[in-house]
Amino acid sequence: MILTVTLNTALDVTYRVPRMRPHASHRVSEVTERPGGKGVNVARVLGALGCEVTATGFAGGPVGEVLRGLLAGAPGVVDALLPCAGTTRRTLAVVDESAGDTTQFNEAGPHITPAEWAAFRDRYEDLLRPARAVALCGSLPPGVPVGAYAVLVRAARAAGVPVLLDTSGEPLRRGVAARPEMIKPNAAELAELTGSRDPLPATRDARRRGAHAVITSLGADGLLAATAQGTWQAAPPRALTGNPTGAGDSVVAGLLSALTEGLDWPERLARAVALSAATVHAPAAGEFDPRTYEEVRGSVKVTAP
Amino acid sequence: MILTVTLNTALDVTYRVPRMRPHASHRVSEVTERPGGKGVNVARVLGALGCEVTATGFAGGPVGEVLRGLLAGAPGVVDALLPCAGTTRRTLAVVDESAGDTTQFNEAGPHITPAEWAAFRDRYEDLLRPARAVALCGSLPPGVPVGAYAVLVRAARAAGVPVLLDTSGEPLRRGVAARPEMIKPNAAELAELTGSRDPLPATRDARRRGAHAVITSLGADGLLAATAQGTWQAAPPRALTGNPTGAGDSVVAGLLSALTEGLDWPERLARAVALSAATVHAPAAGEFDPRTYEEVRGSVKVTAP
Repeated sequence: MILTVTLNTALDVTYRVPRMRPHASHRVSEVTERPGGKGVNVARVLGALGCEVTATGFAGGPVGEVLRGLLAGAPGVVDALLPCAGTTRRTLAVVDESAGDTTQFNEAGPHITPAEWAAFRDRYEDLLRPARAVALCGSLPPGVPVGAYAVLVRAARAAGVPVLLDTSGEPLRRGVAARPEMIKPNAAELAELTGSRDPLPATRDARRRGAHAVITSLGADGLLAATAQGTWQAAPPRALTGNPTGAGDSVVAGLLSALTEGLDWPERLARAVALSAATVHAPAAGEFDPRTYEEVRGSVKVTAP
Repeated sequence: MILTVTLNTALDVTYRVPRMRPHASHRVSEVTERPGGKGVNVARVLGALGCEVTATGFAGGPVGEVLRGLLAGAPGVVDALLPCAGTTRRTLAVVDESAGDTTQFNEAGPHITPAEWAAFRDRYEDLLRPARAVALCGSLPPGVPVGAYAVLVRAARAAGVPVLLDTSGEPLRRGVAARPEMIKPNAAELAELTGSRDPLPATRDARRRGAHAVITSLGADGLLAATAQGTWQAAPPRALTGNPTGAGDSVVAGLLSALTEGLDWPERLARAVALSAATVHAPAAGEFDPRTYEEVRGSVKVTAP
């Protein structure tokens, strides 16, 4: 199975309003809720692809209960979330139906105690044993040490499980130094890590900092990968319009499912680009459109830059 | 005891953000939650005043559970809320800390089935028996008939319990025709009911439509009351600045607590104005400041206009 870690899970709430006006009162015309946090999104995509996947991390309080209830309805995902005394955060996306635009509000997340963090590390060691790959995703909730991902990367390496780290800022910087198999920064995260805004040299620089492979997301232009086997750019056959929410999580799901199937880098990248495009093109944020996925995966262009 | 009815209860969520920018992403610096809906607010103020008070209406789903948990912590309020299959709504106030201003998002509320509405009417009849006064407050959730308040006003009158109706639009128009003891419109609600924006004639007009007494909120200028005993204006001794959220609910609490103590109209109005001013002046929205209440209640000016 593939293990995904989401220390700061979230209940993703979406409000649709006819028109967003600051300092006014709005009737919300539609409310939707889905289980979220990057690792949870990765798990849902893997489950929909038919992979065996287990999701761990923390879930607490009434919001955590709602999240777990919704996750129980996600095909193929085994819930191995740990309880915590604090309340899981909500993220709120307010969609302005006239502008077609979104205003986002993100709560901070529960305070994790040292005992809860220790209990998580024990559980994680147990879950690594049957795992064929692990994804460490997203921000750290308050209370979890900033070097948490470095600890989790080292544990995965000690267990011989390939680990993909998808986070930002100081947790990324420290996690990279622990030598994960892969990191998947976007342009902004890569620039923050390396100080360079030029994707190719920055991607190579990030590899030198410790990651065995760096897969940089170039948005609509696809992916740029620097690996021990070579450097590739993978681009979709045409620009797909839609909602980019969750596209990065689909990249992670594509890379890990292809890795566990023993595919080589060009095939991994083609799958990741196709899943990402199918996510942008899906009617609901964070879902992927299977027809687009099948259509695109055969025609992704993988080239040496 | 005093009975308050809130058919469309709400969990009132407040997000504080440093600066609200449409179409941007915000970290929420503080999240607070309190039990809400107008009748629940009235009950909390009555409980804080030391009155015996019972709150009924609907609460459902995980949000309803959170609301009931918070209500259990409100001093003196007996929870007689009925379960419903739908989920209680949230209201979200996003406070912009730099502008000192609020953007409001209101969910619609659960769909109430005919069986749930019938069960509520039975429970209401039972709760009316020990009641000395009843407040019917706020909007109707989807599924409840628009003439619901007229039904509840007639039941209270048949039980000999004085009833105050605080709502707007068509539910107010139909409820007034059932001859409640009191209605408490604000200027906009009164204009919608009567077609007149001139407070004194409009207040008198609203009485002719069926309410025994009409107490119109004039915002910072206090209250205007047309009753069988006479017409009065009640004004605070000085303008109090602050957050007007919940000030109208404090007016309802003041009117009903004074009614059940057998006070006459000028005393009822003085208490309502003082409680309202103490609510505007409180640090937290929807609370009241006991010191301001004690200070203002002796110096409210009640005059015949």
